Amino acid sequence: MTTRGLVIGRFQPFHAGHAHLVKEIVNDVDELVFGIGSAGDSHTVRNPFTAGERIMMATKSIEAMDIETTVYTVPIEDLNRNSVWVSHVESMSPRFDIAYSNNPLVVRLFTESGVEVRQTPMYNRDVLKGSEIRERMVEGEAWEPHVPDAVVEVIEEIDGIQRVQAVS
Amino acid sequence: MTTRGLVIGRFQPFHAGHAHLVKEIVNDVDELVFGIGSAGDSHTVRNPFTAGERIMMATKSIEAMDIETTVYTVPIEDLNRNSVWVSHVESMSPRFDIAYSNNPLVVRLFTESGVEVRQTPMYNRDVLKGSEIRERMVEGEAWEPHVPDAVVEVIEEIDGIQRVQAVS
Amino acid sequence: MTTRGLVIGRFQPFHAGHAHLVKEIVNDVDELVFGIGSAGDSHTVRNPFTAGERIMMATKSIEAMDIETTVYTVPIEDLNRNSVWVSHVESMSPRFDIAYSNNPLVVRLFTESGVEVRQTPMYNRDVLKGSEIRERMVEGEAWEPHVPDAVVEVIEEIDGIQRVQAVS
Amino acid sequence: MTTRGLVIGRFQPFHAGHAHLVKEIVNDVDELVFGIGSAGDSHTVRNPFTAGERIMMATKSIEAMDIETTVYTVPIEDLNRNSVWVSHVESMSPRFDIAYSNNPLVVRLFTESGVEVRQTPMYNRDVLKGSEIRERMVEGEAWEPHVPDAVVEVIEEIDGIQRVQAVS
Amino acid sequence: MTTRGLVIGRFQPFHAGHAHLVKEIVNDVDELVFGIGSAGDSHTVRNPFTAGERIMMATKSIEAMDIETTVYTVPIEDLNRNSVWVSHVESMSPRFDIAYSNNPLVVRLFTESGVEVRQTPMYNRDVLKGSEIRERMVEGEAWEPHVPDAVVEVIEEIDGIQRVQAVS
Amino acid sequence: MTTRGLVIGRFQPFHAGHAHLVKEIVNDVDELVFGIGSAGDSHTVRNPFTAGERIMMATKSIEAMDIETTVYTVPIEDLNRNSVWVSHVESMSPRFDIAYSNNPLVVRLFTESGVEVRQTPMYNRDVLKGSEIRERMVEGEAWEPHVPDAVVEVIEEIDGIQRVQAVS
Repeated sequence: MTTRGLVIGRFQPFHAGHAHLVKEIVNDVDELVFGIGSAGDSHTVRNPFTAGERIMMATKSIEAMDIETTVYTVPIEDLNRNSVWVSHVESMSPRFDIAYSNNPLVVRLFTESGVEVRQTPMYNRDVLKGSEIRERMVEGEAWEPHVPDAVVEVIEEIDGIQRVQAVS
Repeated sequence: MTTRGLVIGRFQPFHAGHAHLVKEIVNDVDELVFGIGSAGDSHTVRNPFTAGERIMMATKSIEAMDIETTVYTVPIEDLNRNSVWVSHVESMSPRFDIAYSNNPLVVRLFTESGVEVRQTPMYNRDVLKGSEIRERMVEGEAWEPHVPDAVVEVIEEIDGIQRVQAVS
Repeated sequence: MTTRGLVIGRFQPFHAGHAHLVKEIVNDVDELVFGIGSAGDSHTVRNPFTAGERIMMATKSIEAMDIETTVYTVPIEDLNRNSVWVSHVESMSPRFDIAYSNNPLVVRLFTESGVEVRQTPMYNRDVLKGSEIRERMVEGEAWEPHVPDAVVEVIEEIDGIQRVQAVS
Repeated sequence: MTTRGLVIGRFQPFHAGHAHLVKEIVNDVDELVFGIGSAGDSHTVRNPFTAGERIMMATKSIEAMDIETTVYTVPIEDLNRNSVWVSHVESMSPRFDIAYSNNPLVVRLFTESGVEVRQTPMYNRDVLKGSEIRERMVEGEAWEPHVPDAVVEVIEEIDGIQRVQAVS
Repeated sequence: MTTRGLVIGRFQPFHAGHAHLVKEIVNDVDELVFGIGSAGDSHTVRNPFTAGERIMMATKSIEAMDIETTVYTVPIEDLNRNSVWVSHVESMSPRFDIAYSNNPLVVRLFTESGVEVRQTPMYNRDVLKGSEIRERMVEGEAWEPHVPDAVVEVIEEIDGIQRVQAVS
Repeated sequence: MTTRGLVIGRFQPFHAGHAHLVKEIVNDVDELVFGIGSAGDSHTVRNPFTAGERIMMATKSIEAMDIETTVYTVPIEDLNRNSVWVSHVESMSPRFDIAYSNNPLVVRLFTESGVEVRQTPMYNRDVLKGSEIRERMVEGEAWEPHVPDAVVEVIEEIDGIQRVQAVS
């Protein structure tokens, strides 16, 4: 039977650490659900990009990685009700067997619902954090080396640097 | 520059008519956004399947069609505010140039927002309607010939016929 | 002390019956609050016009009546919670002493909250109903004689007849 | 270990059939959760009474039955998302082991979530239906014999007959 | 006529100070409504327990106090609209005559709506605060002496200490 | 053709700086839409006054300025979805050509939607800020010189100083 893994993040923006994560998880599972959290948020310091823009970044980056695994990209809007959040994710996502997360609340919510949770490895967290990359965008420093090429293209297409700077 | 088309439906379930539609639209555009409407609805007569289940049906069916075009599958929750619906779709979707629809309200809303709309062809509407296919599922008649093989597999995986019958 | 009256309707569109109503109520009160209900609805058969369009219709029509009374035009979004609806209206409106309505539910809700309610007279209800006027717009029959001139102008400015026909 | 049962209804109003139901279920379980559905609705033909009024009816009627079992009375607001409804109920209710329902959708939703469901017996359904009792209230026919005495008192305290007639 | 009092708190968790409060208020009133605020929140530092869990704690603790007064336990979800909050509480609760609160905003909202408000006494606030008790749960210090026995049992049943520690 | 300008603020309360702003903008446009933001908020430190109270302040102050221009006063509830906020404003407001704002997020959102934005001048920002005026109300210092006479009257009518002090 197919084993499906779910990974959830905000991906503001999708960066090289996320790309590594995908490469690793696809060794474990037959199919991967890529959940884009806080999907309703955009145009803020922490969440500059819309769900649609993040779907583009993730889909194009994962396509370029040339993996065989089927990957579903699924936006997940916040509900602000922790007690129904797992059901909400389950309704928006293909059925999954394993959730990958290091966030203590997410781990707890899935565990209480009986979903198996696995930790994910961290890559070079000094640079490979969304907050650090957004900070570089604001300051005009080099952010491009830390994201897949596809993300650079998407951010150009949507004029993303201007937005990040305007809302910072 | 990339031309992107958007098509929105409820896909309850994804059927052979939708597969034809995809094949036709991908001739027109470089990339296709496949919007799954009423994404929050499930377990009703008109909307038996969750957004996640419909994403699986569409993604696997389109993969099996072996087309080159990048296809994004995007769930769209209802907002019950017609006046902000186009913005809501735009925020959940990669930027698009053309919306494909035959629904008069959808056509009107996109037109008022300045989005180009194109009509879609209809295929054998006597059978290839979601309502007809759901009716066959309820009555125990043959529905499998009217959907892609991938959809048959998904509906088996999720025990879908039992659900359609229980909520009818 | 100032006496304020409140009248609530959907005003789809504002018509000559509403104009009569305003003229009559301003004899009773020092100030009038003109509440535009179902403010979030638009682009449907029953509610084709947005709140903003209806505010324009009402404000311009009342200005043209050349009355002395201060009139406040206040959009009221539906809450779908009858039990909190009066509080919702009170928070969106200047304080009022009397509510004018013939709708049994509205009368009941205000009465249970201790607000004085007065019935309003009806004018030539065969023609002067929103549903009748919208029907004439759909059918291409004469609707202009039944609304103030200002409403004709607004509906022209917003290309309203096309919309009413598209969503009908 | 404590066995808890859950029963959900709208209880518009609580009537003799519900009283019978409670008496029967308390033989099966150690504790009973009495879930009052559509808790946000009131002042309509189908849902004339507020959640607070229905809590009073149920609590006082069950107190008068003089049973030993702990009974929790819990209002449940509608979410209009079938896929998260079970989680929503679970978060508002003490943990329960068995759900009692004859509603096919409710049965299906609990079953898909792995909750044991039991059918409930029906009592004299010609009269002992909320709709029938509300109809008698509207028409001025005898409704009092079909509800516990405590319900008659609550409906008097809240002037309930006037409301049922006003919104009908 | 019956005098009903309302007390609202978050009760994260129900503790000995709340038990004292109940004992005192039941001397003043014929019936007591015990309102559990922020009912939709759970699994956070400030609100670890669900509404259902808090209903269990309060109901069992009050049962063990062996008082004669009828007590209604009512969860109250946040609305984030101060102006309609009193109506919201009124719709979820049996009618009440007096609200007990020391919270300045709550006092103001009830006062503006014409509800009588009474201050409540405070008991040994150094220890008998929810925040202090949750802190002890996180740190592994003694919290049990400060809550009724029934609360200790509920927290064991739901594996509550693990949750408080996981989300802290 | 009519040129309409839109200005949006919270107006907690409407003060002399806002009055200057109105005087200046009416030189530029034929009609002015006065948008009252965060319309659902009240009874907090930052937002003490309801939308209805702020509509009264603005309408009466602008009437007293005796300008010819038609001014629409429109409450705008927060949506917490930046990506649909412009559409939301457009649906609640008469159509507008120019938005006046100095808020970087508002400027960005309108600009991305293709709406022309103009900066507004600032007047004596040390005193003419809502926060400064509310602080004076709390502290019992002179706030009346900094608001139009009509605002003083409204705040007296609604017993506003007591509220500001109670929620601070």
